[in-house]
Amino acid sequence: MKTNQTIYTRACNVLTGGVSRNTIFREPHPYYVSKAKGSYITDIEGVERIDFANNMASLIHGHSHPAIIDAVTKQLQNGTAFTMGTEAEVDYAELLIARSGTFERMRFVNSGTEAVMTMIKTARVYTKKTKIAKAEGAYHGTYDYAEVSQTSNPSNWGNINKPNINPVVEGTPQGALNDVVIFPYNDIERTLNILDQFADEIACVLIDPVPHRVGLFSATNAFIKAIYKWTRKNDALMVFDEVVTYRVNYAGAQESYTCKPDLTAMGKMIGGGFPIGALAGKSEIMEVLDPRGKILRHPHSGTFSANPISTTAGRVAMELFDEEAVLNLNTLTETAIHQIEESIKIADVPISITGAGSMFRLHLQEKKPTCYREAYHTDEKKSIIKELLDYLFMEEQIIMINTCACMFATSMTQKEVDRLSEALLNGFKIIKPKLYQLY
Amino acid sequence: MKTNQTIYTRACNVLTGGVSRNTIFREPHPYYVSKAKGSYITDIEGVERIDFANNMASLIHGHSHPAIIDAVTKQLQNGTAFTMGTEAEVDYAELLIARSGTFERMRFVNSGTEAVMTMIKTARVYTKKTKIAKAEGAYHGTYDYAEVSQTSNPSNWGNINKPNINPVVEGTPQGALNDVVIFPYNDIERTLNILDQFADEIACVLIDPVPHRVGLFSATNAFIKAIYKWTRKNDALMVFDEVVTYRVNYAGAQESYTCKPDLTAMGKMIGGGFPIGALAGKSEIMEVLDPRGKILRHPHSGTFSANPISTTAGRVAMELFDEEAVLNLNTLTETAIHQIEESIKIADVPISITGAGSMFRLHLQEKKPTCYREAYHTDEKKSIIKELLDYLFMEEQIIMINTCACMFATSMTQKEVDRLSEALLNGFKIIKPKLYQLY
Repeated sequence: MKTNQTIYTRACNVLTGGVSRNTIFREPHPYYVSKAKGSYITDIEGVERIDFANNMASLIHGHSHPAIIDAVTKQLQNGTAFTMGTEAEVDYAELLIARSGTFERMRFVNSGTEAVMTMIKTARVYTKKTKIAKAEGAYHGTYDYAEVSQTSNPSNWGNINKPNINPVVEGTPQGALNDVVIFPYNDIERTLNILDQFADEIACVLIDPVPHRVGLFSATNAFIKAIYKWTRKNDALMVFDEVVTYRVNYAGAQESYTCKPDLTAMGKMIGGGFPIGALAGKSEIMEVLDPRGKILRHPHSGTFSANPISTTAGRVAMELFDEEAVLNLNTLTETAIHQIEESIKIADVPISITGAGSMFRLHLQEKKPTCYREAYHTDEKKSIIKELLDYLFMEEQIIMINTCACMFATSMTQKEVDRLSEALLNGFKIIKPKLYQLY
Repeated sequence: MKTNQTIYTRACNVLTGGVSRNTIFREPHPYYVSKAKGSYITDIEGVERIDFANNMASLIHGHSHPAIIDAVTKQLQNGTAFTMGTEAEVDYAELLIARSGTFERMRFVNSGTEAVMTMIKTARVYTKKTKIAKAEGAYHGTYDYAEVSQTSNPSNWGNINKPNINPVVEGTPQGALNDVVIFPYNDIERTLNILDQFADEIACVLIDPVPHRVGLFSATNAFIKAIYKWTRKNDALMVFDEVVTYRVNYAGAQESYTCKPDLTAMGKMIGGGFPIGALAGKSEIMEVLDPRGKILRHPHSGTFSANPISTTAGRVAMELFDEEAVLNLNTLTETAIHQIEESIKIADVPISITGAGSMFRLHLQEKKPTCYREAYHTDEKKSIIKELLDYLFMEEQIIMINTCACMFATSMTQKEVDRLSEALLNGFKIIKPKLYQLY
């Protein structure tokens, strides 16, 4: 009989570490999906779980939404990729641009990593400058420049007044590290001071408006305004990574701010469950990608970019995620947060919750973290979080993201929220003794 | 009524240059697909064309293969992406590893660009060195390091003894350019001489064994052997980009060589028409990606990596592309080349053909090019090729790749080959006067 263990044993003979993405790795083995519908995933051994991870925030309607399946099934009959255009890419670009106040032109790519990479390259062409500035702890995909100092830790993060430039992958070229400037998120004074030191060299300041790995709290309006003003003064671009956060409002997390980004990278949910990324922004800047000029300033293609499967699935998903759906999902998420805060009180544990829109993250500390260094997980915290998440997964049949975060989907109802807050209450009681040993 | 022009007019209001990939751009406008089946694509105005481009070599069975549609349609019902594993990724990895003599472990990603980027990063971790060496003119996706000097031209390519390091995208950081070494393809003496100058710094020598943009001719066995020996002597890796060329033999173009690569990047056809990329090679090297160690040397995930749609479609496609199918397709391609050489003779035009396996490219010169600089298209040549391809597209309803290349698919038969060689004969006669003006 097939078990999760037997499949993993096979996997270890062909995939490095037995997985193709570290995300799905669990000890002693990952679990393998047999079917998934709405908010429920059944594994190969028949165990059904409620999915609050939604493939790392990429499934805004949960699994196998019938309208998406129908549209993709139809498109399948007519082909999946061509050396020609399709109306699907035009329809979808029209929808995303109509939805947003800041998108004038766009391009589709195949992943969030590609979207951020293309955005950075575009900023360099437009500004004729090289360096990028990004926040300590912020995850922006796996392009060398974008991942610098994402995993900084107390042993190497350095002085907060000028955080160290730490590679994520061993062997990252020094030349790449030299072209990255790291600032502490939401810290206006320190950030401006750091940016000023490289004022002539910074092509763009890269911001995730609700950075998951920093701590999943929103950038303040004052911080965004300060960055924006700085970029205007220094001929740099302010660019947003909304790969995760586009879900926060109808027109992305950026809708919440007075100052808007010049360019925006997207991905995850805008693929409707299929691989996608996108770059959108001011036409004057996007023009550097135009193939019609005599000189190609930024030649850009991609075999599967804008394929009609991803653009069709994405369009249907985003049509369904209309203004009302966004509000309803955010309201349900607020309810969940309130109920979990209630569980925290009942269990009497030093845990706090941060988040925005349809996302939240639990922190093993009474006071909500306000920066990466406060939200950082020590080994002790990591071990307690692992115990909590393993308990939820194995005993309560609940899937959360390994940072202790949930990314909601429109397939969820009050029933799943109740199960989550009850299960967390049980989990909190189990980890309580260890939590108090932390202090 | 919808026309290609009306859709493009809409596209220009939302997509930069009206396209999401430069590849599909044509003057005065791109064409939009309404349906595609096998080797035939019908555009939105009802014109049917034979497709010899196959989405830039990514569709080994042509469009909408029933077995792929069926498998994907089934998987759709059970979900498209999870924060868990699926048996589909294990099944597919087993198939690819069984097929190849050099793959011990692998990982899936979302595109060829991501595959090459991950391969280069892996080589850096393993060798603790930074620089990569690549061939002038070779295309390896859009990662800065991988694209250097891909579009070098007579005004900037410099001395062949040490080709210049030219950025493809404006604003490519000097720090990235400094970490790339450029050599002339298939030129053993010059290449070894250049590599020797950076012997302590080169992490990997990146080779496309049949580089399309260099001229679509194979690396010689002597060249690969020389590179291999050099990498053994200098603690560097020899890595292959087989994103396009994996189709050449049952186990990739690498099957033709005595010396085998340490790592191989794949993409295109192994997605069965869906977005994919993959990295495979020696387990000792791939181990740097293992998530089970205390220190993550190369943390690597990817939201859509190894998703069950791409891995299912890919597995079905590669099962169908078995040893017999590879041989049959290569034989049909040889027939096509012979027939086109016949057309060249009849038309009496100075045109030659290079290629390997199921791919070939036409060159507007009597002698087959043997290097990038010989195959380079001057503006005059570009304009004649455009005239030929426009004639084929508009008057003969035949789609070729804009380099004047064809990538065959198993959906083709002698009928399509006959149409191609006849159409080319007609086309050759039209461009003949201009061709002779070149000399």
